[in-house]
Amino acid sequence: MNDLHVDGERLWRALHQLAEIGATEAGGVARVALTDLDKLGRDQFVEWVTEVGCSVHIDQMGNLFARREGAEADRKPVVIGSHLDTQPTGGKFDGSYGVMVGLEVLRVLHEADHRTLAPIEVVSWTNEEGARFPPAMLGSGVFGGAFSLESGLGAVDPDGTTLGDELLRIGYSGPQLCGGRPVGYYIEPHIEQGPILEASEHPIGVVTGVQGIRWYDVSINGTEAHAGTTPMDRRTDAMLSAAELVMEINKIATRRADGRSTVGVFNSTPGSRNTVAGSVNLSVDLRHPDAEELLHMSNELLVVAENLSPAASVEEIWYSPPITFDERIVARIRESASAAGHQPVDIVSGAGHDAVYLSAVAPTGMLFIPCKDGLSHNEAESISQAHSAAGAEVTLQTVLLLADENTVVAH
Amino acid sequence: MNDLHVDGERLWRALHQLAEIGATEAGGVARVALTDLDKLGRDQFVEWVTEVGCSVHIDQMGNLFARREGAEADRKPVVIGSHLDTQPTGGKFDGSYGVMVGLEVLRVLHEADHRTLAPIEVVSWTNEEGARFPPAMLGSGVFGGAFSLESGLGAVDPDGTTLGDELLRIGYSGPQLCGGRPVGYYIEPHIEQGPILEASEHPIGVVTGVQGIRWYDVSINGTEAHAGTTPMDRRTDAMLSAAELVMEINKIATRRADGRSTVGVFNSTPGSRNTVAGSVNLSVDLRHPDAEELLHMSNELLVVAENLSPAASVEEIWYSPPITFDERIVARIRESASAAGHQPVDIVSGAGHDAVYLSAVAPTGMLFIPCKDGLSHNEAESISQAHSAAGAEVTLQTVLLLADENTVVAH
Repeated sequence: MNDLHVDGERLWRALHQLAEIGATEAGGVARVALTDLDKLGRDQFVEWVTEVGCSVHIDQMGNLFARREGAEADRKPVVIGSHLDTQPTGGKFDGSYGVMVGLEVLRVLHEADHRTLAPIEVVSWTNEEGARFPPAMLGSGVFGGAFSLESGLGAVDPDGTTLGDELLRIGYSGPQLCGGRPVGYYIEPHIEQGPILEASEHPIGVVTGVQGIRWYDVSINGTEAHAGTTPMDRRTDAMLSAAELVMEINKIATRRADGRSTVGVFNSTPGSRNTVAGSVNLSVDLRHPDAEELLHMSNELLVVAENLSPAASVEEIWYSPPITFDERIVARIRESASAAGHQPVDIVSGAGHDAVYLSAVAPTGMLFIPCKDGLSHNEAESISQAHSAAGAEVTLQTVLLLADENTVVAH
Repeated sequence: MNDLHVDGERLWRALHQLAEIGATEAGGVARVALTDLDKLGRDQFVEWVTEVGCSVHIDQMGNLFARREGAEADRKPVVIGSHLDTQPTGGKFDGSYGVMVGLEVLRVLHEADHRTLAPIEVVSWTNEEGARFPPAMLGSGVFGGAFSLESGLGAVDPDGTTLGDELLRIGYSGPQLCGGRPVGYYIEPHIEQGPILEASEHPIGVVTGVQGIRWYDVSINGTEAHAGTTPMDRRTDAMLSAAELVMEINKIATRRADGRSTVGVFNSTPGSRNTVAGSVNLSVDLRHPDAEELLHMSNELLVVAENLSPAASVEEIWYSPPITFDERIVARIRESASAAGHQPVDIVSGAGHDAVYLSAVAPTGMLFIPCKDGLSHNEAESISQAHSAAGAEVTLQTVLLLADENTVVAH
């Protein structure tokens, strides 16, 4: 243990000062990736990290690194990160929390003039939300090798503008190769964006991994028919078949402890009050922390779809395998939480994060703090100052353990 | 019996000549109410009935009557009718069949110089489809007293144009009071628009009545939540509740011999693949030939809606009570069908027709002929020439029975 601690008040002020950039009337933040406001948010971050003696490094995808040198030149940095961009009607904490916790760690080290063995870096990944430039997590995705640089820079917004052009426009297209930068460990503090920690009444969630996700487009074709003149036994009703599918999909998740299933999109044609529906298109989102179990869920979906009348045609459009975070980092976060007097709660992340792509290139971990009512991607997103400080303190202590560990483990 | 018979070839030619007005590339007809094409269809009808010595009478709603005088001045006319307007992508026969059968009856009588005791009239009701000016059956509805003349003339299309202005524009705003015109009997030949007769392999359906209809708007409010981070047991999923409702609504009809239930409209928000649905709005259409049974169905809907989680809020927006057609006319149609060598099939109309509103002011009946695959409101709508002729022949003989009956029954 050491005598370094975060300043919860200072962190809280930084979070709220940052939230003024793109503040919405409803109390949220609209700082969408690669807009003028995103540039202002980045500028503010650069100003703050420069004040505490960090160098700033920007890669080809605009990923923005602040670096505080360590004592031993051959150690790879411990990297704390998340993202500064928000949803169009986002909150103050999704993404910003992780970057501001990183800033607070830098401030603590600077103030105490504490030199860690390994360098410390804080990163803000470009376009995590993907709200303007789908898909999400593009900056970390290119960094982690999931996407090519070309596809990342070529991502287009609804107006046809490319991400690469917007990076140049706001002055954050950097010279560094995206992905070439060494990472010793990666740790991402984040708000949970779900209701589990709040219900547990413990402030620190130790994220053991991220659920696997499978996405499907489903279409059901029946026969349009007159609602008045067509007897029930002569119908081929796409609406009825779709309703049964929605209920069966729900059961696929509820008969498992850790499964999740959602039908979020449901469109029917012709959408006429007195016409039996001719077709329904719907989306399916299946999630599970275990890859094999997720595959079972997928198979159950296919069987249910085939046995409907009329049958449903199912196309898988995306698969994101489950991630298990690095055991050492998970253990260090758990130790740091216990040492700070918190009972750590193991939790699997339901949402994707930049840490997913980082886990492909470095030992990676995450910690969560509670958010009010599990609400996120919403202007009403809210956390408590005490939880905010607790998450930062656990991050600081974990980073110190990793940066000063006696033996550097070869990766 | 008499020696008068319809000319099936001539009727077939008239149907197809009329269908050229507004003919679509796909073989259907687009002759929407009070368009220039509707005017041309009316003009054609006026030309044809004038050729066979009829006078033409137009009322304030544009309902268009062709009158052939009878031998006895004090008899009220036997009226044959339907409508010349079509759906925007309609077929050749919905509505037009009844009016062209009426024309064929007039042609037979004219050719044979046969004078019936009662006058014979053929009417085309304005805006039966309601496709441009909702609600449907406005012309007959004002005539039958279901709607005020003001509401009929004030009906607006999506551009804000009123029905009254369009009647003036196409020259079919008549001087006669709408509803003041005497009707001795009303008979409406129509295509079934459903699959029952085709399956029975008999060409003549004797319509004993029209189902009652109840329409509802249903809304379900859940809570938007992240599909990844929200455990199944912490969701209030409007989509799931709506799916259960759709299935239960289906059962309300299928556990009865003659019930029908349809959910044709289903809209959910926010319509995002990875968000649990916050709300669903859907429509319900319940039908039954028996008013009491239809009320039971309605009550079952309310109970199911209340017991859902989240519950559904149900608002009834329309009730059209079941209609039982006049026993004498039903008997005459049955006799005429048998005399022509057909086995008449009793059938309840699933769809609304002008005859519903006429039944409030005069003894009314309908007869159906089969249509291919039960298809209607569709450019592919199709009937056979033989069935077309059979329905016309039964109409002619029924009209002669009613027009020449020895005792005029007081209404």
